Amino acid sequence: SSTAKENGTRTTLSSDAVINLDHGDPMAYEPYWREMGDKCTVVIPGCQSLSYFANKDNLCWFLEPELEEEIKRLHRVVGNAAVEDHHVVVGTGSTQLIQAALYALSPPDESEPTSVVSAAPYYSCYQEAADFLRSGLYKWAGDARAFDKDGPYIEFVTSPNNPDGSIREAIVKRGQGKLVHDLAYYWPQYTPITCCAHFDVMLFTASKCTGHAGSRIGWALVKDKDVAIKMTKFIEISTIGVSKESQIRSAKILGVISDSCLHPGSNNFFEYGHRIMAERWGKLREVVGSGKIFSLPEYPTEYCLFTGEFSETHPAFAWMKCNKNVEDIEKFLRGQKVLARSGKRFGSDPNYVRLSMLSREEEFEIFLHRLLAIQGTSN
Amino acid sequence: SSTAKENGTRTTLSSDAVINLDHGDPMAYEPYWREMGDKCTVVIPGCQSLSYFANKDNLCWFLEPELEEEIKRLHRVVGNAAVEDHHVVVGTGSTQLIQAALYALSPPDESEPTSVVSAAPYYSCYQEAADFLRSGLYKWAGDARAFDKDGPYIEFVTSPNNPDGSIREAIVKRGQGKLVHDLAYYWPQYTPITCCAHFDVMLFTASKCTGHAGSRIGWALVKDKDVAIKMTKFIEISTIGVSKESQIRSAKILGVISDSCLHPGSNNFFEYGHRIMAERWGKLREVVGSGKIFSLPEYPTEYCLFTGEFSETHPAFAWMKCNKNVEDIEKFLRGQKVLARSGKRFGSDPNYVRLSMLSREEEFEIFLHRLLAIQGTSN
Repeated sequence: SSTAKENGTRTTLSSDAVINLDHGDPMAYEPYWREMGDKCTVVIPGCQSLSYFANKDNLCWFLEPELEEEIKRLHRVVGNAAVEDHHVVVGTGSTQLIQAALYALSPPDESEPTSVVSAAPYYSCYQEAADFLRSGLYKWAGDARAFDKDGPYIEFVTSPNNPDGSIREAIVKRGQGKLVHDLAYYWPQYTPITCCAHFDVMLFTASKCTGHAGSRIGWALVKDKDVAIKMTKFIEISTIGVSKESQIRSAKILGVISDSCLHPGSNNFFEYGHRIMAERWGKLREVVGSGKIFSLPEYPTEYCLFTGEFSETHPAFAWMKCNKNVEDIEKFLRGQKVLARSGKRFGSDPNYVRLSMLSREEEFEIFLHRLLAIQGTSN
Repeated sequence: SSTAKENGTRTTLSSDAVINLDHGDPMAYEPYWREMGDKCTVVIPGCQSLSYFANKDNLCWFLEPELEEEIKRLHRVVGNAAVEDHHVVVGTGSTQLIQAALYALSPPDESEPTSVVSAAPYYSCYQEAADFLRSGLYKWAGDARAFDKDGPYIEFVTSPNNPDGSIREAIVKRGQGKLVHDLAYYWPQYTPITCCAHFDVMLFTASKCTGHAGSRIGWALVKDKDVAIKMTKFIEISTIGVSKESQIRSAKILGVISDSCLHPGSNNFFEYGHRIMAERWGKLREVVGSGKIFSLPEYPTEYCLFTGEFSETHPAFAWMKCNKNVEDIEKFLRGQKVLARSGKRFGSDPNYVRLSMLSREEEFEIFLHRLLAIQGTSN
C-alpha cells in the first residue's frame, strides 16, 4: 500500500545499518497511530482550502478555527498551560515560531542587535536561528549564565530542557529581558505536569506532542496582543501563513488525543507514550549501568497532576556523558554507525552527546546492542 | 458539510461588502475543483508522514518523491520550463523560496550585504523579504534600472511580471550578478508559452498554478547543485522542511492537471483557466474603456506552444492607472470598499493600483459594478 511505501523503513534493518539518533524524529509513536486506524484519517477534497485566509476575523488570520479549538481543548485536558488569556499563533513547526518570537520581541529601534541567550546546554537550533541571516535585529549571545551585558535581551527557557531534560527557570532576570518558554516537551509522556504554565510566550509543537513531525505544525500561546500581532506578521512575510492541510490534520489528531484522555477504556495516548518512554529509559539505564564508560543524568520524582501519580522525567533525548578519555564522542559513535549530536553544538563539551529516544523500536534495540558491544570491548 | 463551512463566503455577498483584491487569493479556480469532485480528494491516515524525512537519498531530503515526479511531469506536459538538468527544491510557498534564494546566492564572505534588485514596478514582497530581518547577507537596493553599484547583486526577473503582466528579461547584466527567475505566472491560463524556460534558478508556486494558495507549496528548479544544497539548508534551518500533507495533496492535484491536459474530452485545467481569465479581462476592458478615468496596459499577441493558438497575456493582476488628479488611488478605492495595493508598494506611483483578477466570480462582478459607478459619477 502507499502507506507502507510512505513509511519506508518498516522492513527489518540490517545489523550494520546506520542508526540516526541525531534528529528527534518521533517514529516511536507510529504504532499507536497505526492502531488508531481510521479514527484519525483525514479526507480533503480538491476544492477545500484554496484561500490564503482561514479566519479573517482572527488576529492570526491563517489559523484554522478547528485547530485553535483543539489546541485549547488539549491544554485544558492536560492542564499543562493556560489558554484563557492567551492568543494562539500557529507556525510551520515551533522552529518558525522561535524566529517569529525573536522578530516580535526585538525592539525595532535599537542601534545594536538584541542579545539572545539560553542556559547551556541549550537547544542547538536557537543559535542557528538567531545567527544564520546575520540579522541586525537580534544576535546570539550564548550561555545565559555567562551573560552580563546591559540592555535588552531575549532568553529562551526550555523546560524540560533540550538536550538534558532538566526542569528550568529563567536565569538572567533583568528588567529589559523578554522570555520565551519553549515547552515542546512539557507533556505527560516526558515529564510530570507539576503546574499549569502561565508565561508570556509559550511554544509547543505537534512533532513532540503527537509525533507528527512531518506536518510541521507548532503553536505559540502569547499573552500580549502586540507580540502576537508581530509574530503573525513574521509568518505572513516569511511564508504567508501555514499549510491548511497540516492544520486540518493536526486538529483531528489533537482531538483524538483529547478524546483518548477523557474516555476511560480508550487507548490513552499519554499513557502509551509514558509507558514507551519509561521502558526505553529503563533499558538504557540498565545498559549504561552495566559498564563504566557512559553516564546519564538523574531526574527527581514528582507528582503529576495529569496522571495523579508520582513519576520521573523521561526525556525525549538522552544526554549521555563519556567518562573515558575519548576526544569526540560524536565522532566515536559515528564510527560505530550511531549518529548523535555532539555536546559542542549545545554550548557544552564534546564528551557529551544528545541521542534521540524517539526512534523506531527496532533502531532503539540495535542502538542498545551497539552500546553494550562498545562497553564489552572497553571494559 | 465541513467543506461548505471551510470555504466560508459561498453565501451571497451584500451589495456593500468590502471586496478584497489586495492579495491574489486564487478563488477563481474553486468551481473547477468542485466540479472535479473525488478525483482530487486525498485521504491521509493518522500513521502517515510522522517523520521529518521524505527521501533521505535526495539532496532535498524533505521533498516527497511523488511531488517531485508530478512537478517534473507537469512541466514536461506544459513545456514551460526545463526539468532534466535541474534539482527540485520544495518550499513553504514560493515566498520561502525567495528568501532561500537570497540566502543561497549571497556570497557568505562579503563585508557588505549583497544588493537585491528588480525592475520597477516590482513584486512588493521582494523588498519586504529582503529587508524585514535587516540581514547582513543581503539588502534591498530598489529598481534594477537605476542600479549602478559595483560588486555582487541578485536580480529578480518576474515574467509575466507581478504587478503589470509584462514579459521580462534581466536588466542589469553584469558579471557578478545572480539571477532568480520568478515564473509564478508562466502558465497557459495567464500567458502564451513561447519557450521552454531554462534559467539557473526558476521559482513556481501551486497557489498561482492550481489555485491552492492554502497549501503553501512552491518549488524551485535549480541548475547548480551547491545552490540547491544551500536553498535546502535555508528551509531546514527556518522550518525543518515543508508540510508533508500539503506535498502529498499538491502531488495529487498536479497529477490531475497533467491528466486533464493529456486526455481529450477531460476538462483541461488550463483551458478552463484561460477561458475565465480571457472573459474577465474582456469585461474589465469594456468597463474601463467606457470611461476616461482609468486605463490598463496592452499586451502583445503571441503564439502559444502549449495550446497551438495565438493569444494575449491575461495577467492574474490588473495594473490599473488613474488618469484623473486623484492623489492616492488605493485610498480612493478603499472609500468605495474595494481593497487594492498601491503602486507605491511596487516602486511605482500612487496613481497606479494592483487589483487581483482571481477573486470569486461574485466579487469580481461587484468590483465591475463599483468601477462603473465611479465612472458614472465622474464623467
